[in-house]
Amino acid sequence: MGDEFSRIARYLAPLAGPEGLGLTDDAALFTPPAGRQLVLTTDQMLEGVHFIPGDLPALIARKLLRRNLSDLAAMGATACGYLLTTALPPTTDESWLAGFAAGLAQDQAEFGIQLFGGDSSSSPTHISLSATLIGHVTPGAALRRNGAKAGDDIWVTGTIGDAALGLQARRGTLQDKSGFLTSRSLLPNPRMGLNLSGIAHAAIDISDGLVQDLGHLCKTSNLAATLYVALVPTSHEAAIFGDAMLETRLTGGDDYELLLAVPPEAATALRLACGNLAITKIGTFSSGQAGVTILGPHGQAMNFSTAGWQHF
Amino acid sequence: MGDEFSRIARYLAPLAGPEGLGLTDDAALFTPPAGRQLVLTTDQMLEGVHFIPGDLPALIARKLLRRNLSDLAAMGATACGYLLTTALPPTTDESWLAGFAAGLAQDQAEFGIQLFGGDSSSSPTHISLSATLIGHVTPGAALRRNGAKAGDDIWVTGTIGDAALGLQARRGTLQDKSGFLTSRSLLPNPRMGLNLSGIAHAAIDISDGLVQDLGHLCKTSNLAATLYVALVPTSHEAAIFGDAMLETRLTGGDDYELLLAVPPEAATALRLACGNLAITKIGTFSSGQAGVTILGPHGQAMNFSTAGWQHF
Repeated sequence: MGDEFSRIARYLAPLAGPEGLGLTDDAALFTPPAGRQLVLTTDQMLEGVHFIPGDLPALIARKLLRRNLSDLAAMGATACGYLLTTALPPTTDESWLAGFAAGLAQDQAEFGIQLFGGDSSSSPTHISLSATLIGHVTPGAALRRNGAKAGDDIWVTGTIGDAALGLQARRGTLQDKSGFLTSRSLLPNPRMGLNLSGIAHAAIDISDGLVQDLGHLCKTSNLAATLYVALVPTSHEAAIFGDAMLETRLTGGDDYELLLAVPPEAATALRLACGNLAITKIGTFSSGQAGVTILGPHGQAMNFSTAGWQHF
Repeated sequence: MGDEFSRIARYLAPLAGPEGLGLTDDAALFTPPAGRQLVLTTDQMLEGVHFIPGDLPALIARKLLRRNLSDLAAMGATACGYLLTTALPPTTDESWLAGFAAGLAQDQAEFGIQLFGGDSSSSPTHISLSATLIGHVTPGAALRRNGAKAGDDIWVTGTIGDAALGLQARRGTLQDKSGFLTSRSLLPNPRMGLNLSGIAHAAIDISDGLVQDLGHLCKTSNLAATLYVALVPTSHEAAIFGDAMLETRLTGGDDYELLLAVPPEAATALRLACGNLAITKIGTFSSGQAGVTILGPHGQAMNFSTAGWQHF
């Protein structure tokens, strides 16, 4: 590998927007869009925790951006740029960085964002990465977790549980002939650009697992929720594993679908706002002690050994 | 340790400003100050790279903020908030996090900043941390690296080389009876609040070492620089080691003093702006091939084996 500064100049400076000042300065200069509120989020990806050693660097880069973009999507924000930290062991070869930068470039184009700045370091052992995403919303229009009301329905975009099964496929403990589940684990699709302000009362992205993230929303909104297992949208590729994988699907993380609290009278507006994106009603919020009741296909209450992903 | 979410609620949520929404949401909501340009920077601290295993967590936290604040200082920005990432091995005990949060709280109060949001993860081996700082400047008034002009003098704040010697003291290879050098290594003082717009043509903070950071400024401004070793301000505690430590002092990093390009006619304004903070002229910029000429006490050109710190 070339030295730190030539690596930055070669691989990262071409990704910088005007805010990044060619990555030569101490910080980025960003003129916020007039009359907008900023939405700021940060997420890490560590080798051995968030990705598997040997995963393609371009896909790691894209997932790093997409996990953060999903947080912006959950608040209804438009993304504009990001800061990046990389910490690479000395054994990392230059092709890794080239692939990583190519992945960043691809998703910058796809999501209309640019690199504003960052920090490069060596790492004693594993690769660690983080990105801070900057987005914006109409003041007061951001979707929050605390706005759900008793009587709201619970909706989710897309299908739930694919990424958790895809992770098992990548680890070799499950077969994924079509590669669909694997792709859902490697490359989530953040649900950007839905205009849900005035439609949804609350939103969260499903990163830790459906049950746990629904629990977060219940806690923050101080509501109970009832989740109907039979209603949870499941891809064909996930459904073929049947009930054996039910707990994994409902508690596994990394789907990056949106979970929404929507009053019944806004259901049509919700469908219109989502256009071609599948959206499914899976339960309801009610007053009562904050928490999630999971009802199986025969109306029986179900319990899982864990609600979802958390760090030790 | 409690679970991830209770740790966040206990130690980090109390640090959050209103922008952080109690750290319950997917992202922070920040209304930028009207009519200001934002200044954004990010820096990491990794165990074994940027700090020594066993360093006090409160001091690690404060240095993490201060390294980032120094980048804002170099651009003349006012700090307002930050996002934080922490990745901790499962062996980290709760007292570490308590100490770390106490350090954050102390420097939040000292520098008038608040926590806007962040991300917590487990780490396979070592502790890794990053912060993204958000500051603001009058539009167009940010100090850049590219504004130095031939004929400008080179000035530095404070004293140079203390932190590099302090690091050696912390490693036991050098004696630091007073503890001054050690404290300069553990807890830098970012030079916030100097109003240098219209006085300095360019600025950079000295994080990688005086010679290397002067080289960065030369390259970005496309100028040559002459640095007079005898003029470099040296603390009493560093000076007692004499010329044996000269290269370490001039190329070691972590001082977080400011290096400025200032036209001769602005020298008085510079001194006034710096008030009680020591400021010293150490050389000049001239046209010619970008690079740094180092002149020793007898006018002889000097070369060092390395210009300063970089990551592998």
